[in-house]
Amino acid sequence: MTTPVFLLTDFGLDDTYVGQMKAVLLARAPGAALADLTHGIPAQDVVAGSWAVAEALPWLPRPAVLLAVVDPGVGTTRTPLVVQAGAITAAGPDNGLLSPILHQDGARAWALDPLRLGVEPASATFHGRDLFAPAAAALARGEEPASLGEPALEPLLLPGAEQPGKLADGWSGTVIHVDRFGNLITNLRREHLGDDPTGARVVLPTATDPPVVRTYADVGAGELCALLGSGGWLEIACNGGSAQERTGLGVDSAVRVATG
Amino acid sequence: MTTPVFLLTDFGLDDTYVGQMKAVLLARAPGAALADLTHGIPAQDVVAGSWAVAEALPWLPRPAVLLAVVDPGVGTTRTPLVVQAGAITAAGPDNGLLSPILHQDGARAWALDPLRLGVEPASATFHGRDLFAPAAAALARGEEPASLGEPALEPLLLPGAEQPGKLADGWSGTVIHVDRFGNLITNLRREHLGDDPTGARVVLPTATDPPVVRTYADVGAGELCALLGSGGWLEIACNGGSAQERTGLGVDSAVRVATG
Amino acid sequence: MTTPVFLLTDFGLDDTYVGQMKAVLLARAPGAALADLTHGIPAQDVVAGSWAVAEALPWLPRPAVLLAVVDPGVGTTRTPLVVQAGAITAAGPDNGLLSPILHQDGARAWALDPLRLGVEPASATFHGRDLFAPAAAALARGEEPASLGEPALEPLLLPGAEQPGKLADGWSGTVIHVDRFGNLITNLRREHLGDDPTGARVVLPTATDPPVVRTYADVGAGELCALLGSGGWLEIACNGGSAQERTGLGVDSAVRVATG
Repeated sequence: MTTPVFLLTDFGLDDTYVGQMKAVLLARAPGAALADLTHGIPAQDVVAGSWAVAEALPWLPRPAVLLAVVDPGVGTTRTPLVVQAGAITAAGPDNGLLSPILHQDGARAWALDPLRLGVEPASATFHGRDLFAPAAAALARGEEPASLGEPALEPLLLPGAEQPGKLADGWSGTVIHVDRFGNLITNLRREHLGDDPTGARVVLPTATDPPVVRTYADVGAGELCALLGSGGWLEIACNGGSAQERTGLGVDSAVRVATG
Repeated sequence: MTTPVFLLTDFGLDDTYVGQMKAVLLARAPGAALADLTHGIPAQDVVAGSWAVAEALPWLPRPAVLLAVVDPGVGTTRTPLVVQAGAITAAGPDNGLLSPILHQDGARAWALDPLRLGVEPASATFHGRDLFAPAAAALARGEEPASLGEPALEPLLLPGAEQPGKLADGWSGTVIHVDRFGNLITNLRREHLGDDPTGARVVLPTATDPPVVRTYADVGAGELCALLGSGGWLEIACNGGSAQERTGLGVDSAVRVATG
Repeated sequence: MTTPVFLLTDFGLDDTYVGQMKAVLLARAPGAALADLTHGIPAQDVVAGSWAVAEALPWLPRPAVLLAVVDPGVGTTRTPLVVQAGAITAAGPDNGLLSPILHQDGARAWALDPLRLGVEPASATFHGRDLFAPAAAALARGEEPASLGEPALEPLLLPGAEQPGKLADGWSGTVIHVDRFGNLITNLRREHLGDDPTGARVVLPTATDPPVVRTYADVGAGELCALLGSGGWLEIACNGGSAQERTGLGVDSAVRVATG
């Protein structure tokens, strides 16, 4: 059986771009299961794309292929990549999008060589369809990533700017994502909450400190709370409402934790 | 062959939540066909989700598995369910979302037991991925719903508030859904239109009575009409336009039928 | 193996309409791979739908089935069609939507006969589910299109209004599509740019002439350029931004090329 392919792009669903990639995948890897992670990454936002890759990565089946394209540098000399970490392989641009895979133990990267894929010189504007989809199809068929190019020595890793900063009495973090329900997801994790998470104090710039709870329903309807969300990140939520609307906060807003 | 799985949620497509559920499904039921019913149910609107389940249910293949999550009570004590009616099985929260299946003849329900699925105690916030997707995968592999939990004695059924009311000369209904084309779909059906449907009089609060016709094109361009739509519900439509915009009506607006 | 089916509609993804079509496809062609081209065609815009079919057609696998529904005339006497060109078969309304397939060498069309599909007389409002999906499923199972109806003698072809006009010193074209990134895609192609494409002069009504380049990155950040896009059409783009916002142009705006 072919390996399933998961797709993540900033192409949206109103054009046929994603459909064209799927057409190429099904032409070159007939029978492969295709599943969308999302195509709603904000246009050309590599950091948001990389965060979404990190969020979904733990849940992918093993083996799985990831086809990820958020690519403001398409047509420049940025390298097309194939990467591997354990049973996960991926194709995408060398711009940090694949950092969450490259950060895994034993991860390796290769500079994708179009000639080895047997594709025409790629169009200057749509590598997702003309280069990365054929590469993902080859991976889905079980071809070795090392057969698709020469080792890439220094693939770009996103800077660690998203790590929380240590404070005297806790940690300084930021909101890195706002989901559809208005939950404010931060870069703070379990280890930043101290020995007794529910004893930690979460400080927001525009609202009174929300209590740290286990689940939304631990506070009254319409009330704010802070909890460890499904991805393991601390998030600010509003029971039955939108924390984004309630607080006016968004991506890059500061969130501080005091564990003292 | 594994049974196809149909997904319906209020998660939207801009986050990777639906993608994470599909990753779990393909990890636990490799080869299962996955198809989206919709992920555009208004956030936390269980009534709208239940209506969408009812609309799609007649068209599902037999057998089929439904994975349905609109779950404002996630993390509370509301029971996770597995239900079965004939060749349809489903996993989702016990909040009325699955009412259209539970209303079928011979329907049964079980309280989903995480231990029987071999899953870790579920995250407090994402039962769709951590509990319902593994359950749907088990059903897709052909496991018996009764093997996944103990019988649920009184699963929640949505109140019959959506039934039209009898009037001296007809029926009093409401708009229950507005679709992408601006069609106003009501809770009135063929049996509320009397012996001669095209002789029935449909009364709207904000526009002159639209004629009851067989198809949109039976009225002039831009004109209102009433017809039995593809789901069997009476809908108010506008040929080549939006009945919602023409009338200013929306969900919960009153629509009356006089058959006298 | 069944043939993969590609779907293109104006149904959007917020209703279950697309899901109902997929349910019918999987009921009648179990195991068929289903892939969305797009469901974001503007409501009832047959010209935009036809353009999207043309854009995706070269990339479909061979064989493939296309299920295309943008159908403002549903319920009228317009004929339901099955068409074939080479290894591509398709089902959809006879309103010009399938023109890009019908323009292929050796293309043929048949008037779909519900009786031959063994379907009930179709609902008056949802031929996508009740007629075209069963036809696409039959094609995916390998049934001959000629077995589904009698030859259609004069299927509707969209008028050639989208062809550029010849000028003394070049060509007069129009914007035919704006994609998610704000790229303005015109009906001008390589052959309208003369012997030396980068020597051609592209004239816009509301901005200084953008240089013709090979890729977005050949101009500075925020600057306009013109290039042959991934579909082979000349497009106006803005490096790192939206050409639509920068120029104020949109669908039907005039774009002139001087090659003199």
